[in-house]
Amino acid sequence: MVELKLSTRKRTEFIDITRQVQQAVTESGVQSGICVVYVPHTTAACTINEHADPDVARDIIGKLAELAPEEANYRHIEGNADAHIKAALCGTSEMVIIEDGKLQLGTWQGIFFCEFDGPRSRRVWVKIVPGRGG
Amino acid sequence: MVELKLSTRKRTEFIDITRQVQQAVTESGVQSGICVVYVPHTTAACTINEHADPDVARDIIGKLAELAPEEANYRHIEGNADAHIKAALCGTSEMVIIEDGKLQLGTWQGIFFCEFDGPRSRRVWVKIVPGRGG
Amino acid sequence: MVELKLSTRKRTEFIDITRQVQQAVTESGVQSGICVVYVPHTTAACTINEHADPDVARDIIGKLAELAPEEANYRHIEGNADAHIKAALCGTSEMVIIEDGKLQLGTWQGIFFCEFDGPRSRRVWVKIVPGRGG
Repeated sequence: MVELKLSTRKRTEFIDITRQVQQAVTESGVQSGICVVYVPHTTAACTINEHADPDVARDIIGKLAELAPEEANYRHIEGNADAHIKAALCGTSEMVIIEDGKLQLGTWQGIFFCEFDGPRSRRVWVKIVPGRGG
Repeated sequence: MVELKLSTRKRTEFIDITRQVQQAVTESGVQSGICVVYVPHTTAACTINEHADPDVARDIIGKLAELAPEEANYRHIEGNADAHIKAALCGTSEMVIIEDGKLQLGTWQGIFFCEFDGPRSRRVWVKIVPGRGG
Repeated sequence: MVELKLSTRKRTEFIDITRQVQQAVTESGVQSGICVVYVPHTTAACTINEHADPDVARDIIGKLAELAPEEANYRHIEGNADAHIKAALCGTSEMVIIEDGKLQLGTWQGIFFCEFDGPRSRRVWVKIVPGRGG
């Protein structure tokens, strides 16, 4: 398992971690298998979406803020209930297929770390499972 | 594959199954790999989030009820269309990395079975895939 | 990795791909492991839900349209910001356990390709990772 370290700078932001995840795959030497990207936090998440136009991430962030506003009638008293809800909607992990030592992403796809209660120091865990002959 | 059995007691509730999933990992003897937690139902789901304060699960449940109310103008006539929608939003499975024979969860993370159309008898399937040398 | 090809016919539709995914599992010869279903697009997704009554998929599609309407005040200027948001909510991949060479799905579960910006030619990638002895 490889640990990536991140420092987020805003309460809510998406950070493209595709390059660092590919580096972990390259260093593993695995040619064929799957790569698990896991976020060990409960107010952050992981998603795969377009990373060419940053407005796509902004629209997703905007919609999540609309669905779960920061201030509302929540029971959790730490002031970040919205962040837990957004993490539940986006999910804690992503999987990407590996072939020829490379993450198999679609043309427009990138892997994002999703910060919902920053700024904070955060971690991402990357685990690579070889396939048959991988 | 290990099957866990659950009896839910409310229409909607989150049940912490972290201990049972860890037990399946321990019994497998696998030291390094990934653990897949899969829910074979279409009106229930699986999620990973904070399990220290039960209000976090209550807030997630409350928000899902707001996004997909039980009564609305649905086409599916069995009266549980909201539960299918909530299952789609939360997802049918989760993955957790295994190292040293232990689920690698963040400090505040627990694995929840999400009941959206109970009370019912439910099942959860746990599959462990060893990594290289696992 | 096996590639499935699909032609979607509407802007938004769910297509049941369970049979094609099972065929990829059968052809792999793997008896025990996990099957990863991955969608390499940013305006499409993958979900597992009831495939007996098509009204369930219609209700999920209807709710997603309500949560992220096609026309709204988005920043992304290509006119498909709603499709990116829906893809983020549904997720890019699914996992299914394999035992005895068969996808282990619940009685009512099917695997759906979710088109949110069709009609288009689309691809789905299927990767099979054998378990111990698989």
